Amino acid sequence: MKSDIELINSYLDKYLEIRYPHVIWEAMRYSVLAKGKRIRPVLMLESAKACHGDINNVIPAACALEMLHCQSLIHDDLPCMDNDDYRRGQLTNHKIYGEATAVLAGDALLAYAPQVILNYTPESVDRKILLQVLDEFLKAAGAMGIVGGQVVDIESESKEIDLNTFNYILMHKTGELFKFAVRAGALLSQAEEEKLNALTSYGEKIGYAFQIADDILDVTGTLEEIGKTPGKDHKLKKNTYVSFYGIEKSRKDLENICESAKKILVDSGINSELLFNIANNIVMKAVK
Amino acid sequence: MKSDIELINSYLDKYLEIRYPHVIWEAMRYSVLAKGKRIRPVLMLESAKACHGDINNVIPAACALEMLHCQSLIHDDLPCMDNDDYRRGQLTNHKIYGEATAVLAGDALLAYAPQVILNYTPESVDRKILLQVLDEFLKAAGAMGIVGGQVVDIESESKEIDLNTFNYILMHKTGELFKFAVRAGALLSQAEEEKLNALTSYGEKIGYAFQIADDILDVTGTLEEIGKTPGKDHKLKKNTYVSFYGIEKSRKDLENICESAKKILVDSGINSELLFNIANNIVMKAVK
Repeated sequence: MKSDIELINSYLDKYLEIRYPHVIWEAMRYSVLAKGKRIRPVLMLESAKACHGDINNVIPAACALEMLHCQSLIHDDLPCMDNDDYRRGQLTNHKIYGEATAVLAGDALLAYAPQVILNYTPESVDRKILLQVLDEFLKAAGAMGIVGGQVVDIESESKEIDLNTFNYILMHKTGELFKFAVRAGALLSQAEEEKLNALTSYGEKIGYAFQIADDILDVTGTLEEIGKTPGKDHKLKKNTYVSFYGIEKSRKDLENICESAKKILVDSGINSELLFNIANNIVMKAVK
Repeated sequence: MKSDIELINSYLDKYLEIRYPHVIWEAMRYSVLAKGKRIRPVLMLESAKACHGDINNVIPAACALEMLHCQSLIHDDLPCMDNDDYRRGQLTNHKIYGEATAVLAGDALLAYAPQVILNYTPESVDRKILLQVLDEFLKAAGAMGIVGGQVVDIESESKEIDLNTFNYILMHKTGELFKFAVRAGALLSQAEEEKLNALTSYGEKIGYAFQIADDILDVTGTLEEIGKTPGKDHKLKKNTYVSFYGIEKSRKDLENICESAKKILVDSGINSELLFNIANNIVMKAVK
């Protein structure tokens, strides 16, 4: 996993070389190159490896996915949204560059990320697959993906919501990018349909689990552990897995979901130690 | 021109059908379907016609361009940016939907617009051309395009700047989308190199002229005429063509630039009455 992270970081650094106007590229770099777990791009790389794909085919899409994730964090942290001062153990983008530049840095990342997929994915990759990956990327980025999840999340603050709405938030706020990660890894490796479907289910479950863990850690974690202000969801009266089901059931469900994610891998003959470990780590982190 | 506008409006309405979550699609529609001049998509349609292209090939890209333009307006109007209450003769997006949803509506448009190009451009269009149009679209949208222009514009408020910086703002804040409009029209019509280059120069000049006219109208126009609060640039101590050169030279330069844009069309044998009229209208509007 460490070598995956180093690989991703080196390409992020390369793709985001400083150009004119410097301040916008610096603001983009500030958030993207911060110390993140890189779980989404790592998932993509490992999904590709599990499908015996060429890692070079997925590096651009993996980096684009991390840029998209960071874009959503920059905008989510704005005063008019979740108003957060810390992220990934450092001050948030708008605290350093001001709100206007933070809005624009997010926009610039959102426009640049698909350009990275377009311009750096090797020519050997079938253009039809490239277009499918691009389409799924943009879908995950917008109103049918994370923006949709975020909007319903904000609308639901301080409100009682039904289970369907709650699951929608959970699946879209986090699930879409996890699903895209494993799907792009498989698609760019020309995986057979069955493997693609298995990895898609695995990705959905892992995304779901990751959000539950995040909700648990908002209650039990410290600023040092989670890199952002704890207790934030509670303060904003967000509907979280913990507020919905309580901490005990949250932990139990988290374990069960990660077990079933691993079972999907076993059942479809995907022997990826790292994909197993990612599931285990999500549980370990939140169920100490 | 009226039929172009009606065509664009009907497709914008279709592409932006309301989906779940309703509020985000409503917010996107609110700004995109507001009464705009549609000058960018009209330029694209007319550029395609001038190249004897099939209009159906450019409608998705033309609508995507209008969505991108509206995205930039929504974010520019935010309190942390230009803080505008009126746009296109109606309250700005954040005044109706709140800042959080306005930020997200912009993000959603930025992600959806390239999806429109990807999913609605007819299959008959060469995928290589489609990829080039997509790439130029994303470039115009981001740090190398309008975001770059906007960042330097904000950084330069209340400051004396040199001519290079001033021209960078002028070319990027407005010029990039005008250039893209005519280039995409030509590319999607498989225009020969010479025509593509002529239309590119025409588009750059028209974009430049449009920004000068906008700067003049900020001084001389009324809320009814320009659909947004006049005197805003002066208040924000923006570097505008008028603040740089004075109103008389601005008018004169505007006329000269539009003349030279028309000359480019004549010299390269492009007989498009509408492309001529667009140049004339920009002048007429600002030099009354």
